[in-house]
Amino acid sequence: MKTRDRILAKSLELFNEQGERLVSTNHIAAALKMSPGNLYYHFPNKDAIIFELFERYTGQMAQTLVLPEDRQITQADKINLFEKLLSSLWQYRFLHRDMTHLISDNDEMRDSYRLFARGMMINVRHVYQLLIESGLIEATEDEIGALLVNIWIVATSWVNFLSTTGFFNFSEPMTEDMLRQCIYQVICLEAPYLRGEARDGLEALKASYGAALRPF
Amino acid sequence: MKTRDRILAKSLELFNEQGERLVSTNHIAAALKMSPGNLYYHFPNKDAIIFELFERYTGQMAQTLVLPEDRQITQADKINLFEKLLSSLWQYRFLHRDMTHLISDNDEMRDSYRLFARGMMINVRHVYQLLIESGLIEATEDEIGALLVNIWIVATSWVNFLSTTGFFNFSEPMTEDMLRQCIYQVICLEAPYLRGEARDGLEALKASYGAALRPF
Repeated sequence: MKTRDRILAKSLELFNEQGERLVSTNHIAAALKMSPGNLYYHFPNKDAIIFELFERYTGQMAQTLVLPEDRQITQADKINLFEKLLSSLWQYRFLHRDMTHLISDNDEMRDSYRLFARGMMINVRHVYQLLIESGLIEATEDEIGALLVNIWIVATSWVNFLSTTGFFNFSEPMTEDMLRQCIYQVICLEAPYLRGEARDGLEALKASYGAALRPF
Repeated sequence: MKTRDRILAKSLELFNEQGERLVSTNHIAAALKMSPGNLYYHFPNKDAIIFELFERYTGQMAQTLVLPEDRQITQADKINLFEKLLSSLWQYRFLHRDMTHLISDNDEMRDSYRLFARGMMINVRHVYQLLIESGLIEATEDEIGALLVNIWIVATSWVNFLSTTGFFNFSEPMTEDMLRQCIYQVICLEAPYLRGEARDGLEALKASYGAALRPF
C-alpha cells in the first residue's frame, strides 16, 4: 500500500474508534511508526486528511444508489442497496458523528457537504421513481419529497442519536448492529408506501435489521 | 426581573443568535452592562448557565405533551400540541444545534439529556395511546415504537439538518418559518397512520407548516 493510502486507512481507523477530535496528526504518525514530517509530506494538516476521507465517502455513497435502468427493480435490488448503504455508513461512521463541527470551520468541507446532500437528494428521488415504476412503491410527489428529507435526517443523525440518548443499548465503541437499527428505522419510514413484493417482504426485511423501540 | 433571570434571558438570546460556542461569559456580562464578577456571583461558569437553560427547556417540553385525560382527544388538541412544541424548540433553538458538543465534556448534562430523552419517549408513547383511543391514529405497537424514534430524530436534528445542508432556503440567522417546516416533516411521519378527523384535516394542517422539498 502506498504511504498516502496507509495514512488514510490508519486515520479512518483511529477517527472511527476514538472520535476525530481526540486524534491528532501526531497520533496518526505514531500509530504508523512514521515521523510527523513524513506525514506532513503527504498531508499539510488533519483537515486535509478528513477532506480526502470525506471525498472517498461521498463517491462511494453516490455509487450505492445506482440501480439497473434496463429492467424493473426487485426486492433483491433494494436489499442490496440497503446493504451497500449500511456498509458505507459503517466504514466512515466518524463523519456523521459530528458533521456540524467538521464543517463549522472549514468552508471547502461545508460547500462540499452541501453539494453532496443535494446530489444524494436527486439520486434518492430517482431511486423512488424507479421503485414507483416497478410497482414497489405508491406515493404522491409531495409524499416522496417529505420522505426523502426524513430518510436523510434519520440516516445521517443516527450515530448522534444513539450517542446522545443512549437508546438501543448504546455503548462505546459502537457496533455494526447498532448501525443496522438505522436501516430498520429507514424501512419503517417507507413502510406505509410499499406495494407488491416489497410489502410482502416487509416484516422479514425489518426483522433482519432490528426491532422497534420497546416501552421502557 | 431578578439579576439571575436577566442573565439567563440575555444568555439565551445571545446563544440563539450567535451560537453558544461564540458567546463567552464576558460577552454576556458586557451585553448586560454588568461586571464579570457580578455574573460569576450568580453562575460559576458558562456551563452552569447552559445547564439551567437546559433544565427550563426540558421542564417546558414535558408540559407540551400534557393532553386531557377525561375526554377524547380532538384535532384541535393536536394542533395546540404542535404549536407548543414549536414554541419551545424555537425559544431554545441553540440547544439542539450542537447537543453532541454540549454534552461531550459535561457528564451532568449528558445524564440529564438521557433522562430527558427517556421521559419524552414515555410521554410521546402515551400521547399516541390517547390518539389511538380517540380514533385519530391506527397503528401497531411496533409501528408506534419506530415512529417515536423517527419523530425524535427529525425534531431534534432539524436545526442541524438545515445548517449542514442549506435546504429550505436556510440562511443565518434562522427564522421561525424554517423551524415550522420541522413540524411539517413530523406530520408527514405520522400521516399514514391518521384516521377520522385527523385524516380529513391532514392537507390543511400540512399546508399551515410548510411544503414538501421540491425537485432541485
